[in-house]
Amino acid sequence: MLEPVTLRPIGTIRTPFTETTGIPVQAVGGVRIEGTIELDPELAEGLADLDGFSHLILVYHLHQVSGVRLTVTPFLDDRPHGIFATRSPARPNPLGLSTVRLLGVDGATIHIADLDIVDGTPLLDVKPYVPAFDDRADARIGWFEGKVERARTTLADGRFRNTP
Amino acid sequence: MLEPVTLRPIGTIRTPFTETTGIPVQAVGGVRIEGTIELDPELAEGLADLDGFSHLILVYHLHQVSGVRLTVTPFLDDRPHGIFATRSPARPNPLGLSTVRLLGVDGATIHIADLDIVDGTPLLDVKPYVPAFDDRADARIGWFEGKVERARTTLADGRFRNTP
Repeated sequence: MLEPVTLRPIGTIRTPFTETTGIPVQAVGGVRIEGTIELDPELAEGLADLDGFSHLILVYHLHQVSGVRLTVTPFLDDRPHGIFATRSPARPNPLGLSTVRLLGVDGATIHIADLDIVDGTPLLDVKPYVPAFDDRADARIGWFEGKVERARTTLADGRFRNTP
Repeated sequence: MLEPVTLRPIGTIRTPFTETTGIPVQAVGGVRIEGTIELDPELAEGLADLDGFSHLILVYHLHQVSGVRLTVTPFLDDRPHGIFATRSPARPNPLGLSTVRLLGVDGATIHIADLDIVDGTPLLDVKPYVPAFDDRADARIGWFEGKVERARTTLADGRFRNTP
């Protein structure tokens, strides 16, 4: 069958958000919030030419989420949906995905902004954001229709932390 | 220090691409290529309401890549760049990211199109694609400038497979 995949974090994400409760539910709600990535110094060579990009895609471990729910009522709605039709953190594999703004690279430190990530989050990958690869025009967005604007102001409560 | 993260694949991606050599280097190069996701049937409940979306973000294990390179010459350029400034697969954590088109959901089977993924790839997560969260206007794209159109026609060679 499908073998487990073991990953080693490449660094730590530092942000002003010391707990998951009260942080923006999407990066678009964390505009101008600044933080850093402390990359493993042994990997700093891999950052060459990163400073040409304005935005990065971060893949990270949602390390404060415990428990999996297949049906959730997400932050942006008051009705339940299948977990894979939401961006909620209580996923079978707790992988977070955020497109953040790159402010600068200084050795093994990456300065970033527009954050919806809790301090101390283990980082798994950094990819350059390229609209020609990552954007799709005229996408249908299911239950998010009419609700995405809420992501600019909605803050997380504790519903996905320490779930049974 | 940073503890390893162990993930269990949630399913398998089935595509017409039986080997990594010769497949599109980005999903935009695999337009109309169709495949399926065979989700673990125990997780099928989590697909409720997914059919309202036109596009999905897939996070998957680049299981045929071996070896990490911190500096690579990517498929779309003839000059080397830091691995984190590329979308090349020989990353410290071999995580793939593709935005694909959703054709339909049938039980635990998800029909998808616009693929740049090799057959048998272990799937780690499915997220709904939401432009308001995932798109950034006016992004600067570093060395990709003037090269993204090549992604529609460039096919992968074997350079990231079985690397030393």
